[in-house]
Amino acid sequence: LYTPSPNSYLLLIAIQRHDEEAVIDRGRVSNAVNIHYEREDLEGHRTLPVGLWMPLLRQSHRHHRPHSQKHRKREREKDSAPMEPGYHCKSHHTPSQRVQFILGTKEDEQHVPHDLFTELDEICTKEGEGAEWKETARWLKFEEDVEDGSERWSKPYVGTVSLQSLFALRSCILNGTVLLDICANSIEEIADTILCQQEESTEFDKHVRAKVREVLMKKHHHQENKRNKLFDIVHFFPAESKKPLDLHVLDKTAQTLTPLPSATAAEAKNGMNQETGTMGLSKAELHFLKKIPAGAEVSNVLVGELDFLQQPIVAFVRLTPAVLLSGMTEVPIRTRFLFVLLGPEGKGHQYHEIGRSMATLMTDEVFHDVAYKAQNRADLMAGIDEFLDRVTVLPPGEWDPSIRIEPPKNIPTQQKRKMPGAPDDSFGIFFCLPLKSEQAPSLLEGSWG
Amino acid sequence: LYTPSPNSYLLLIAIQRHDEEAVIDRGRVSNAVNIHYEREDLEGHRTLPVGLWMPLLRQSHRHHRPHSQKHRKREREKDSAPMEPGYHCKSHHTPSQRVQFILGTKEDEQHVPHDLFTELDEICTKEGEGAEWKETARWLKFEEDVEDGSERWSKPYVGTVSLQSLFALRSCILNGTVLLDICANSIEEIADTILCQQEESTEFDKHVRAKVREVLMKKHHHQENKRNKLFDIVHFFPAESKKPLDLHVLDKTAQTLTPLPSATAAEAKNGMNQETGTMGLSKAELHFLKKIPAGAEVSNVLVGELDFLQQPIVAFVRLTPAVLLSGMTEVPIRTRFLFVLLGPEGKGHQYHEIGRSMATLMTDEVFHDVAYKAQNRADLMAGIDEFLDRVTVLPPGEWDPSIRIEPPKNIPTQQKRKMPGAPDDSFGIFFCLPLKSEQAPSLLEGSWG
Repeated sequence: LYTPSPNSYLLLIAIQRHDEEAVIDRGRVSNAVNIHYEREDLEGHRTLPVGLWMPLLRQSHRHHRPHSQKHRKREREKDSAPMEPGYHCKSHHTPSQRVQFILGTKEDEQHVPHDLFTELDEICTKEGEGAEWKETARWLKFEEDVEDGSERWSKPYVGTVSLQSLFALRSCILNGTVLLDICANSIEEIADTILCQQEESTEFDKHVRAKVREVLMKKHHHQENKRNKLFDIVHFFPAESKKPLDLHVLDKTAQTLTPLPSATAAEAKNGMNQETGTMGLSKAELHFLKKIPAGAEVSNVLVGELDFLQQPIVAFVRLTPAVLLSGMTEVPIRTRFLFVLLGPEGKGHQYHEIGRSMATLMTDEVFHDVAYKAQNRADLMAGIDEFLDRVTVLPPGEWDPSIRIEPPKNIPTQQKRKMPGAPDDSFGIFFCLPLKSEQAPSLLEGSWG
Repeated sequence: LYTPSPNSYLLLIAIQRHDEEAVIDRGRVSNAVNIHYEREDLEGHRTLPVGLWMPLLRQSHRHHRPHSQKHRKREREKDSAPMEPGYHCKSHHTPSQRVQFILGTKEDEQHVPHDLFTELDEICTKEGEGAEWKETARWLKFEEDVEDGSERWSKPYVGTVSLQSLFALRSCILNGTVLLDICANSIEEIADTILCQQEESTEFDKHVRAKVREVLMKKHHHQENKRNKLFDIVHFFPAESKKPLDLHVLDKTAQTLTPLPSATAAEAKNGMNQETGTMGLSKAELHFLKKIPAGAEVSNVLVGELDFLQQPIVAFVRLTPAVLLSGMTEVPIRTRFLFVLLGPEGKGHQYHEIGRSMATLMTDEVFHDVAYKAQNRADLMAGIDEFLDRVTVLPPGEWDPSIRIEPPKNIPTQQKRKMPGAPDDSFGIFFCLPLKSEQAPSLLEGSWG
C-alpha cells in the first residue's frame, strides 16, 4: 500500500475511533479524531506519542449522540491504561467537545470540584543531607513567587509560561504515571504507590527507589513562623474530624487565644512585615489566608533535581478522599492532587517551568474541573488540549518573558468553554487544506460542529 | 508487525530521515526528527499532515556535520514540493538547529535579508461590486491597527495572537501553495502564478478562478490623502531605477517642493491630526514614515472572505527581485513577500487572526531571516516551529486577550536563537518518557545535541 522512499520509514500511530463512526468518506473536512498512543496495541513497535487532535474527512452520515448525563463509573485507574474501546460512549472529537462532555457528567460527592490552592515546592539534592523541600510559588487565582533570597512573597501576577514547558508538561501527563482516586493517608503511602508503578531496571533499582522515597519524605520548608503557628492552631481540631478545615472559623478561634509576641528577632531579620496580628502572623499573611475560600483543597506540585537519578519520575495523583498531609502545605488544608516530577541533575530550571505549567493548569477553572472529574489519562489530555486551544501567545522578539504582568481588572468569563452547543468560533488546533490531488474541503466549515 | 484493535486504524506518516543516521537504538532519548508529510510517497492513502518535531531514540554513534557554509542552490520551488532526500545535507533535527543552519548559509545578493514592513489588507465580497482591499493593520516592530470606523492608527502595541491561529497558519504553510523566488512584475502576474498552482475541480473552475483573479486586482484603500501624496512624490523617481526607494531622501526632496494646502475638508472630517507637515501628510504619519529603515522591503498579507468560494486558497510567495506593486502598499516600497489567504464566507475573524499571525512571524527577526533564506517549504516550517519553541503563553482565565500590551522598554536579544552551539536550554517541543516496558531515558539530557 505504501512504498517508503529510501530515506523514509513509516511511523505507525494508532488512532482511536469512536465505535459508531461511519466509514471515512473522502472529500470533505471532517471531525477531529483523538489520536491516542495505544501502548497495548503497539506492542513491539517503537512509536511516538502523538496526542493531537486533527481534522479528518467528514463522514456522510454522522451519528450524533445527545449529551446525556451519565453516572460516573467509579473505577480506579491504577496506571497508564489507555482509553478502551466502548469504555465511554463519546461522540466528541475535539478537545472542547470532550471537555464539555466530561464537565456535563453528573458527579458523585467524591468528585465535586472544590476551589483549589496550588503550591509549588522544590528540592535539589546537590545541597546534601540537609536538603529539604522549599516552597517557591503559590497560586490562588494568580501566581505569587517567593522572592529570591528572602521569605517575602511577590505581588500576585499573571503567570505566563513558555509554550515549550506546556508541551513538556503535556508529554509528562501523556507518558508519566497517572493515578486517579488513590486512597492514601500519608505521603509515605503516596510515595509507595507512585514508586510501585515505576518499572525496575538497572538504573532504577531498589537502592535508587529507596533514595527517592527518602526524598519524598523530607521536610517542607515554608515561612517558618507562620507554619508553626498554624499547626499549633490545627492541634485544636481533631484529626478525625470530617469537616473541611475552615480557615475563617480558624481565624475567629485564633482571635480568642492569647496572642504570641508580635515581632520576633527572626521576623525582623527576614524583613517580614512588622505588623503582626493574630497568632504572630503578619497582616499580609493573614490577608492571604482569608482569600482562600472555605472548603478549598490543595494541589501540591513537587519538583526535584536528584543527582542520583538517571531517569525522570513523573506522577499525577488524585486522592479520594482528600487528605491532610501534615507539613507538606503552608496551610493546613487537605490535599486533593499531587504532581511529582523528579529528574536527573542539570535541568532544574526546566523542571521548575514544567511545575509552573502544571500549577497554571490547576488554576484554570476549566482544567481544574476536568482534573476533578477525569476518569482516565485521555480525559486529562483533552483538558490540556482544550486549554492549549484557548491560550494567547506573546511573540519572543516583542516581549521580555521575565516581566510580571499585573492581573487585569476584568477577565472574560470562561463559562463558554464549559457549555456544549455554544457556537464554535475556533478553528481547532489544526485544519487541513486539500491534498494536491483532491478537492479542497471547506476550510473551517462545520469541522467541530 | 502490528495488529490494529477493532476500533483503531493505522495512520501512516512518512518520516524523512537524514541519510547518515545510524539505526535507531532503543533506550535513550534522541534527536528530534522532522516528520514530513510526503505527498508523493503516500499516493493513494489518505493521511494527515503532521509536521511536528519529535524526539526519538538517541543513536549510539551520532554523526555530526559541522555547520559548513554552503552556497545556495538557486532553484525555484514552484509549488508544494516536499523536501527531497539528499537535497540538503542537514544533520540537524530540532527546529532551532535547522534554523541556525539556514541562517548560517552564505546567501547571494538576492537573498540578503532586509528590514521588513508588513501590511495587512482585507476584503469581503459581501460588500458587493464596490468591495475593495482595506488596510487594517501594519507592523514595523510592533502592531498598529486601524481603529474601528475611523482612519486613525492605534499606538504600537505587542501583537499577541491566539495559539489556535498560529497553528492554523502553520497548517496553511504546510499545505498551501509555496512559491519561492518568483519573478513577477505586477499583481496580475503574481495572481496568475498563484492561480495556476490551484487544482481545477468542480468547485474551483475557470469561472471561480476568474473571479478570484478579479478580487486580487481590486483597489487597495489606505488613508486616502497620504497615499495620493506619496505617489505624487514617487512620480519623481523613475520606475526603472534600481536603487531602493529611500524614504529619507524622499522626505528631503519633498521638503523642497511647494507644500499642498495643509488641512483638507476630508481630513477634518476624518478626525485626522490637523497638524500637517510635508506634502499634506500629518505629523503623525510623517513620523511613522521616518521609522521605516532605509532599504526596507514589504510583506503584504492579503486576507479575504469571498462568498463565491467553496474552498480556501492559500499562498506564500517570495519575489525575486522585490517589486514595487503599484497601489498595494501604503508606502511606495518594493514588495518581497505576499501571503494570500482567501476563504469562503463566515470565518472572516479567523482569517484575520491567521493574517495577524503571519504578520507577527514576518516581524520576528529570526523568522524573517528564515523567510529570506528558505529554500523550500520545510525550511519555512522549521522557522515556524522554532518560533513556537520560543513563545510565551498567557493563560485564558487570567487574561483578557483584547488588552493591548504596551511595548516593553527592554526586550532580550534574539541573537542566541541564531547562533549554533549556544548552550541549549530548551526541552524541544516534545519529549518522551519511556514506554512502560522500557528504561526511562534521561528526560532532557542532550536531546538536542
